[in-house]
Amino acid sequence: MSDILKQLDAVLEARKAESADSSYVASLYSKGVEKILKKVSEESAETIMAAKDLAHHNSPENKEHLVYEIADLWFHTMVLLASENLSSDDVTKELQRRFGLSGHDEKANRTS
Amino acid sequence: MSDILKQLDAVLEARKAESADSSYVASLYSKGVEKILKKVSEESAETIMAAKDLAHHNSPENKEHLVYEIADLWFHTMVLLASENLSSDDVTKELQRRFGLSGHDEKANRTS
Amino acid sequence: MSDILKQLDAVLEARKAESADSSYVASLYSKGVEKILKKVSEESAETIMAAKDLAHHNSPENKEHLVYEIADLWFHTMVLLASENLSSDDVTKELQRRFGLSGHDEKANRTS
Amino acid sequence: MSDILKQLDAVLEARKAESADSSYVASLYSKGVEKILKKVSEESAETIMAAKDLAHHNSPENKEHLVYEIADLWFHTMVLLASENLSSDDVTKELQRRFGLSGHDEKANRTS
Repeated sequence: MSDILKQLDAVLEARKAESADSSYVASLYSKGVEKILKKVSEESAETIMAAKDLAHHNSPENKEHLVYEIADLWFHTMVLLASENLSSDDVTKELQRRFGLSGHDEKANRTS
Repeated sequence: MSDILKQLDAVLEARKAESADSSYVASLYSKGVEKILKKVSEESAETIMAAKDLAHHNSPENKEHLVYEIADLWFHTMVLLASENLSSDDVTKELQRRFGLSGHDEKANRTS
Repeated sequence: MSDILKQLDAVLEARKAESADSSYVASLYSKGVEKILKKVSEESAETIMAAKDLAHHNSPENKEHLVYEIADLWFHTMVLLASENLSSDDVTKELQRRFGLSGHDEKANRTS
Repeated sequence: MSDILKQLDAVLEARKAESADSSYVASLYSKGVEKILKKVSEESAETIMAAKDLAHHNSPENKEHLVYEIADLWFHTMVLLASENLSSDDVTKELQRRFGLSGHDEKANRTS
């Protein structure tokens, strides 16, 4: 999992060198932080709507839809982080600090 | 990083067996999905406000504050996922699928 | 003021008879409640961003911008109300009930 | 209706002279704009949830609940406006301008 978020961080970083019309992410960067924030807000609303659908009708499709919207939400927060020269690593470190998690395996991965 | 989110998933799962007054997460579960969704919405708004503060004044404190709010947002989406018997793993797999990421190291970790 | 919201209610009601490509409101109706709710969420985020801009820099332009975004937010909640055969009248009556306001002049208008 | 919003504007203005512990509105003013914006965001999320409930189950109770949440949302945007020395009047004038509404009766009311 770690690797997926780190790989996505790298993809988002690489998009910074591209022209605005070459990819969705590059176009978001060029439109500025307000556009990115509007997307964060939209994905948050879509997460809420998907969760309500699931609460009303528990089905595999509605579960999948909720995961899809939360992935969209995380993705756009990662675009926001990248646009500020931050990354998912900063977020997971904050969660680690807050919950007193060991990060044991993480360190193991780094030294390997 | 992987390990941090997986460890947090485990913490959130363990909280399900606890009484509502024993922890913040247990109290969220007991209050139901609407309460969790209000928190997701609130953290989304706080992320937007922190990003605006950073846009107006680029400082290490404001960067740290943005990371803090995004960590809060991810955390509450993970509580939402756990309450539906889903996890951060489902979200990262969706991101992996969507962006054609390898997940190579992830598999390596699992077999180790 | 009353009359403006009532007139806007009437405009929104009239749009229901129009084809989806004839106006913005008719296109919102045809796209369904989720589309309208995404707009409500977006305008809420834009209100928050405009208020933060004003907090950072108090200028007539930023005040005007905040009013503009709140007008957008009220407008889209009125589209939502109309789509459910409700109106701004239901909202102001609820506010009247809640705050024990007289509505004296309102009744006067109705009987005239 | 006009009168209700105008009366509520006056109530919100009067609350500015009160101590923070004397009313909910006075406490919101004293906590600052971020607290008010979090409430705007929360009421927007509650509006979305109420609309989804209504979409899943059309009942008088769910219609009433949607109206209640939109009233909450308008109310908190009016607190925001008041805190910036603006009012519902500024919002309705912007809607009037935008939609080319006459405001005829409004002027009639004013001169009476």
